[in-house]
Amino acid sequence: MRPKPLVTLLTDFGTRDPFVGIMKGVILGICPDASLVDLCHEIPPQDVRGAGFVLQTAVPVFPAGTIHVAVVDPGVGGPRRPILAEIDGRVFVAPDNGLLSHLLASAERRRVRHLVAQEYWRHPVSASFHGRDIFAPVAGHLAAGVEPARLGPEIGDATCLEIPRPAVETAGRIRGTVMWVDRFGNCITNIARRE
Amino acid sequence: MRPKPLVTLLTDFGTRDPFVGIMKGVILGICPDASLVDLCHEIPPQDVRGAGFVLQTAVPVFPAGTIHVAVVDPGVGGPRRPILAEIDGRVFVAPDNGLLSHLLASAERRRVRHLVAQEYWRHPVSASFHGRDIFAPVAGHLAAGVEPARLGPEIGDATCLEIPRPAVETAGRIRGTVMWVDRFGNCITNIARRE
Amino acid sequence: MRPKPLVTLLTDFGTRDPFVGIMKGVILGICPDASLVDLCHEIPPQDVRGAGFVLQTAVPVFPAGTIHVAVVDPGVGGPRRPILAEIDGRVFVAPDNGLLSHLLASAERRRVRHLVAQEYWRHPVSASFHGRDIFAPVAGHLAAGVEPARLGPEIGDATCLEIPRPAVETAGRIRGTVMWVDRFGNCITNIARRE
Repeated sequence: MRPKPLVTLLTDFGTRDPFVGIMKGVILGICPDASLVDLCHEIPPQDVRGAGFVLQTAVPVFPAGTIHVAVVDPGVGGPRRPILAEIDGRVFVAPDNGLLSHLLASAERRRVRHLVAQEYWRHPVSASFHGRDIFAPVAGHLAAGVEPARLGPEIGDATCLEIPRPAVETAGRIRGTVMWVDRFGNCITNIARRE
Repeated sequence: MRPKPLVTLLTDFGTRDPFVGIMKGVILGICPDASLVDLCHEIPPQDVRGAGFVLQTAVPVFPAGTIHVAVVDPGVGGPRRPILAEIDGRVFVAPDNGLLSHLLASAERRRVRHLVAQEYWRHPVSASFHGRDIFAPVAGHLAAGVEPARLGPEIGDATCLEIPRPAVETAGRIRGTVMWVDRFGNCITNIARRE
Repeated sequence: MRPKPLVTLLTDFGTRDPFVGIMKGVILGICPDASLVDLCHEIPPQDVRGAGFVLQTAVPVFPAGTIHVAVVDPGVGGPRRPILAEIDGRVFVAPDNGLLSHLLASAERRRVRHLVAQEYWRHPVSASFHGRDIFAPVAGHLAAGVEPARLGPEIGDATCLEIPRPAVETAGRIRGTVMWVDRFGNCITNIARRE
């Protein structure tokens, strides 16, 4: 028996509007037995880098086969591509704006596809809410068992943002970047323990 | 096989109190296999019109048979009736205060019932938390397969608020009403694209 | 057939970080068919008493067998013990810092265990995130059917905070304590109706 499909959602939609609930309605309309988990919806509006960092932090605890939908999408309605990435046994659905840079850069196995198969979208496709009309339905169909290969052709040029790396300045001194400040005021940097 | 029941929740309860979690406990205690989706819990306190607008926006993406619970209820504990509305294949459970006005006004098929069958409620019924004691248990029983007809008699006088309509003032000029301001600062008006 | 396992989560993690989502990923990785319900994640940071009060308020509506995970944990990484409490047919997983005082004090049947069986934890165990590495995996294993007795030995000295009691000052006068202020500004005291 196929295990119960698990879909996570990460957005900058906040929780005062029904946008996240609407995405869930679309997913459950296509795959009623999916388990849905909110990763975070309070990414600062349009903070693609923050979203990527949060996503990378959360992904390792999820089981193989999890479908991660991430919609922080300042370029919605413009020419940026919607993509699907298979990375080390997990599946990601997101705009091609660099959100997946961290995950792609550290992947052992990766395959990225351009989502073009519009029969798996919701129509008409709005210019401002691809979360509802492209990303959620694609995630729903993946959860229902549709093969990634049916959703679009493989591409080799997914957008990758430069990822800040810590720099050793002098012996015993290291300069890093604060990637995220959590609720408790902890600053999470890009400096790993071993460094 | 009956499809997995889907219940959505819309309230003005916010997320700093356990009220929404309590409603979910009641629903799952009655129907353990229900899927629950939060539509929005940050409706401004007692904003019945805003709640109605948000609900109307979200409903179309949900599959037929979805049960929508909406509790924005300034009149809780007073004489306002608890109602159930079947509208175009979906079921709504809410106070009879006009929250469902938009949906009822645009319905093709509708039937409204006054919820009176107290054997489907939680007892004792608090004067201030009908979400827990009336609306959630009724939703749980609906999700578990109880027929709406058993929950109360049909009524013809559900409360309907006046719905603002856009007005064409002169050629090329239209005056509408802002119904909702979303997180990104977008104002959503009652002016449809075709107008 | 075993009923669908139900797990609730109560934390002071807020919703702007992915911490709650991460705990859910751990639980669903161990027990994919668990139903997860958020009780509240906006407990003021490190407010152990507030968390205990909220938990006590919510618990009665949940069905027997529910697993309640509560992580408000100022002593994380220090010597405080992780515990499991079976109270009147429900199971609680929490740090031993008094969070369960209200529930333990009013219990009819109770058994508390010190969680020591590390084979049910996630490794390596971080010093700052026992929610992910101890409490969530223990909850996942409980949901999957592991017996509490396998998780650690019974203890008799769980931490109990003094619980404020209302005092009758003179005839017709009673002095209580405000335990919680809800979203609507209602102050919830420790004075029961019968008093």
